[in-house]
Amino acid sequence: MKVGVLGATGAVGRQMLTCMEEHGIVAEELRLFASRRSQGKPLSCMGRTWEVEVPDARRFEGLDVVFGAVDADLSRSYAPAIQAAGALYIDNSSAFRMDPEIPLVVPQINGRDVLNAKKGIIANPNCSTIITLMAVAPLHRISPLRAIIASTYQAVSGAGNRGIEELEMEQKALQEGKEFTASVFPAQIANNCIPWIGSAKESGYTSEELKMRNEGRKILHDPELKVTCTCVRVPVFRSHSISVSVQCNRPISLEEAGEAIAHFPGDVLFDEGWPTPLMTSGQDQVYVGRLRPDPVLEGGIALWCCGDQIRKGAAANAVEILDYILVNRV
Amino acid sequence: MKVGVLGATGAVGRQMLTCMEEHGIVAEELRLFASRRSQGKPLSCMGRTWEVEVPDARRFEGLDVVFGAVDADLSRSYAPAIQAAGALYIDNSSAFRMDPEIPLVVPQINGRDVLNAKKGIIANPNCSTIITLMAVAPLHRISPLRAIIASTYQAVSGAGNRGIEELEMEQKALQEGKEFTASVFPAQIANNCIPWIGSAKESGYTSEELKMRNEGRKILHDPELKVTCTCVRVPVFRSHSISVSVQCNRPISLEEAGEAIAHFPGDVLFDEGWPTPLMTSGQDQVYVGRLRPDPVLEGGIALWCCGDQIRKGAAANAVEILDYILVNRV
Repeated sequence: MKVGVLGATGAVGRQMLTCMEEHGIVAEELRLFASRRSQGKPLSCMGRTWEVEVPDARRFEGLDVVFGAVDADLSRSYAPAIQAAGALYIDNSSAFRMDPEIPLVVPQINGRDVLNAKKGIIANPNCSTIITLMAVAPLHRISPLRAIIASTYQAVSGAGNRGIEELEMEQKALQEGKEFTASVFPAQIANNCIPWIGSAKESGYTSEELKMRNEGRKILHDPELKVTCTCVRVPVFRSHSISVSVQCNRPISLEEAGEAIAHFPGDVLFDEGWPTPLMTSGQDQVYVGRLRPDPVLEGGIALWCCGDQIRKGAAANAVEILDYILVNRV
Repeated sequence: MKVGVLGATGAVGRQMLTCMEEHGIVAEELRLFASRRSQGKPLSCMGRTWEVEVPDARRFEGLDVVFGAVDADLSRSYAPAIQAAGALYIDNSSAFRMDPEIPLVVPQINGRDVLNAKKGIIANPNCSTIITLMAVAPLHRISPLRAIIASTYQAVSGAGNRGIEELEMEQKALQEGKEFTASVFPAQIANNCIPWIGSAKESGYTSEELKMRNEGRKILHDPELKVTCTCVRVPVFRSHSISVSVQCNRPISLEEAGEAIAHFPGDVLFDEGWPTPLMTSGQDQVYVGRLRPDPVLEGGIALWCCGDQIRKGAAANAVEILDYILVNRV
């Protein structure tokens, strides 16, 4: 197998290399693409060193799979060449997620949707959406979800390496009593919370908040699913957390919910104690805890979940999509 | 007027002194009480310097008002002497909040309840509860609240000076690459979120979470109010933020809600932009923003609010209670 990674030097791209190794994916050739700034840079993966190259349509030829870890505009611009080369494109950006002819996949939830990748593209969902759905999908299997109210606690890694660097810079400057200006985030993020991620969309919601609704509906195959989402950036480096209230068509007991989550591949249930974003950083599993009855959503359940944004929220999920295809020979 | 402050050297006690000055409260005598450790320490207020003394039953005599800024156990132990001395006790602890004969007051919401202070005690509500209710009380005036789902983003100041010092210590240690152990909080709070505040209570909820429900019901005079609350500590120093979904008996339009909040004393509405905890630190107002329809709670509204935990969440509210009594001569 020959594999390409678009955006190989970014936070998600680098993590994809590690995740491929961890999943035992063996490629006879890796082509690592990034901007001109990184051209020639050596990156290690699968016991060999590969030189970063600038993406070029001809260099997609001969590849079986390309992972995309670039922004939506770049992804849209490279996709036609990847399709023309006949490679499967597994894209982490938002470019193709809502295209009805392109599957949007969390392998543990709707892995079989990869069968519909007629255009040769599979989209990786938004990070908070993946982590939230991993926590509530086990309940959806028992009785279809009707409604979700989610408030997120999102790590700075969601804005890539630049987001991580901005929090580091601000924390250092505050320690040293130096002035600084926020540029990646719309306000100081150190010692603060910013209730605004993405751009303004309908009814006062942000693009990030509507992803939870729109992508959630597509992944769960339910265009009627009701979702209220508030996305908030917090001064945490890598893992997202979400406080969730969820209601299914029929009431689900805490015991039933706990058992379903504990047995769901990729989830870890906390019967005692509670997960934190720090605890889940560097791991592919989604940690779920604080299960309790939700007195507002009749028969509903309140819970708290955490997952590494760069891993399960992005790179690991993309690699798991490839893994699903290889294992199931689809 | 002669005023006492119990716990005058703590984060809330010191803030009470500043808030009294800001509210133009003039006392001919201040008696500042704290533990033996602070005995003799000079504290400035109202243009004079007062020496901290150790609390003693006889020293409550002659006082008109005593502010309590100590924990519930200490508050319970001093209350009888304060009552015996005939001073009005305005207590910030949780000791008396749920006593049906003791009013629990947010002056802007249920100020008239001070009339029922038959025992000579008025309780100051929990910090997150005050800030959340300040945001939703304007809607309650239009149509009674039916349900609240709240996820909090609580500052370390909620654990007092020790909480602030622990976050400072951890941030410094992380910058210097030194080891440290959390002692005030149940896990590292720097670069983390901790979904556990208080102690375990019924149905998997914490004491802090049930305060939102129980105190909310008492303040709004509605024992049927439905409340789901998830309390989370975040690495922020002073201000609490809350993501709220709220439903009233009849649907309220965003325009109606916005106007009611904008005109509510003590609230600041963000029509554009959004408030952050950093922005509200050092202020008595509660900032409310991100108003939008909540598609899950029929006819409901989602919003985000921030308020200084030490000020409106504690000291300022207590001083406003005294102010309310003085202004209304009750």
